[in-house]
Amino acid sequence: MQVGFTGGWLDRVDHLRGNAEAVAALLGDWRAKLLKLDGGDPALDADGKLAWVSIADAAPDGEAILLGLDGGGKPCFAECRPGDVGGPARSLALFRMLEMLPAGEAAIFGAARSLTGWHARHRFCANCGGPTAIYRAGWARKCPACAAEHFPRVDPVVIMLAEFEGRALLGRGAPWPKGRYSALAGFVEPGESMEEAVAREVFEEAGVRVSNVHYVASQPWPFPGQLMIGAFATAESDVLTIDTNEIEDAIWVTKDEVRAALAGQDAPFLPPPHYAIAHSLLEAWVRNG
Amino acid sequence: MQVGFTGGWLDRVDHLRGNAEAVAALLGDWRAKLLKLDGGDPALDADGKLAWVSIADAAPDGEAILLGLDGGGKPCFAECRPGDVGGPARSLALFRMLEMLPAGEAAIFGAARSLTGWHARHRFCANCGGPTAIYRAGWARKCPACAAEHFPRVDPVVIMLAEFEGRALLGRGAPWPKGRYSALAGFVEPGESMEEAVAREVFEEAGVRVSNVHYVASQPWPFPGQLMIGAFATAESDVLTIDTNEIEDAIWVTKDEVRAALAGQDAPFLPPPHYAIAHSLLEAWVRNG
Repeated sequence: MQVGFTGGWLDRVDHLRGNAEAVAALLGDWRAKLLKLDGGDPALDADGKLAWVSIADAAPDGEAILLGLDGGGKPCFAECRPGDVGGPARSLALFRMLEMLPAGEAAIFGAARSLTGWHARHRFCANCGGPTAIYRAGWARKCPACAAEHFPRVDPVVIMLAEFEGRALLGRGAPWPKGRYSALAGFVEPGESMEEAVAREVFEEAGVRVSNVHYVASQPWPFPGQLMIGAFATAESDVLTIDTNEIEDAIWVTKDEVRAALAGQDAPFLPPPHYAIAHSLLEAWVRNG
Repeated sequence: MQVGFTGGWLDRVDHLRGNAEAVAALLGDWRAKLLKLDGGDPALDADGKLAWVSIADAAPDGEAILLGLDGGGKPCFAECRPGDVGGPARSLALFRMLEMLPAGEAAIFGAARSLTGWHARHRFCANCGGPTAIYRAGWARKCPACAAEHFPRVDPVVIMLAEFEGRALLGRGAPWPKGRYSALAGFVEPGESMEEAVAREVFEEAGVRVSNVHYVASQPWPFPGQLMIGAFATAESDVLTIDTNEIEDAIWVTKDEVRAALAGQDAPFLPPPHYAIAHSLLEAWVRNG
């Protein structure tokens, strides 16, 4: 199943990250490349792929994050600069780029965006309040005062289609583009399984009890750093009790309506973009019958 | 499929957490209960279930975390005390208790342990270094200086059985009890799907390429706060190249050997405890044929 933000082809060379000498050698490699990011957004080259510059263009006071080695063995870096804030803001230009970017390119951008944003928002030690320093080639930070190690966050989120008698439940967030509906979603909390989180979230947001939760696929989502876990579930009723603090509206849609929406035809809702796993879930749902 | 640390029956009442008045009323409820924890370990009552005390026994300078409401509507809390360090240390006594604790009780303990430990290790703002305060009834912390909100971490981890011609790959960590082998596992990183993390980890730890990754089940793991995502995969070879920085050893085991190990009979390895999802994965694997 094809999902967005997957298929990055860099070798992440985890075994080298903790080796300061090896990382210094990669940084000193004249072939080393730096991903071009502008306020967290990628730049595209003439072929519509991610643009890279030489590591020589890195800021002298920036922190270099080793994304990995490309197929030719060239070291690939991203950098976090002192003024970066790592906010979750997304521009219209970014949305347009994501519409065009191949999934594998988006995966590499996604890793870079998640990591640079995490560094920008985690310059201090949550354990003691002191300033932290980059560690393990950008895959951690370490506190020189209390020795605590901190690792980039990946927050698991469940995203699901609950089905009741041939119709699937979609919801919309208040700030979304007009007409857009998508799969319900929510963060997995401490002390619950993926399956329990699916049931809790659908009940919290729409007042619907579900069972029979089935995993479908997963996707990294770099705004700022989620692991989206996509699932199907069976609803016990189609009576909605919407929590308007969580979603603005929810609707039940048929497979024909979803097919029309995905095909860009006249439909009761605008579907999520192709690079969102909700799109992949809808495609998988209409394919099954 | 029965997995450990699932089936907690508290209503998490997410909709009340942000309502300071409602939370104060729950704290003032004379029926309110406080989970008895001793250095992060649970206490058991005469029935072998989690022991609770009255909220009146809470420390005056502790932070109260709303776990949820029990079936009778009684508010249930855990507390984080100023001196708590929230370390990952696990005692032998804890292991023995987990052997006996029903999964639903372990789920409630797990949520409490993850949350109290997270609070203890996150008293300062990672964004600006200032002290943070408990927020949303213990399901967040907030920085009064920079207004950043911080949420409890749940780190997704993949844990998997790679199969090659009827045998499954197990590994062991150096500090484990003698003879213990379990499923390989590793943290999902920014910019990769669950399926990609499975393939990367098996290759990093054992040098084996896998494909055909299938989700099996998930489990929260409260040491300190993982979401374990269990999967099967197909190995392309049984030639091992072990990274001894990650695992001490790896072996291929047959279904008969796994059946013997799970039954406590003579076998080439000691299996993981029943409350670990690796145990559930092994059970599922031998059931399939």
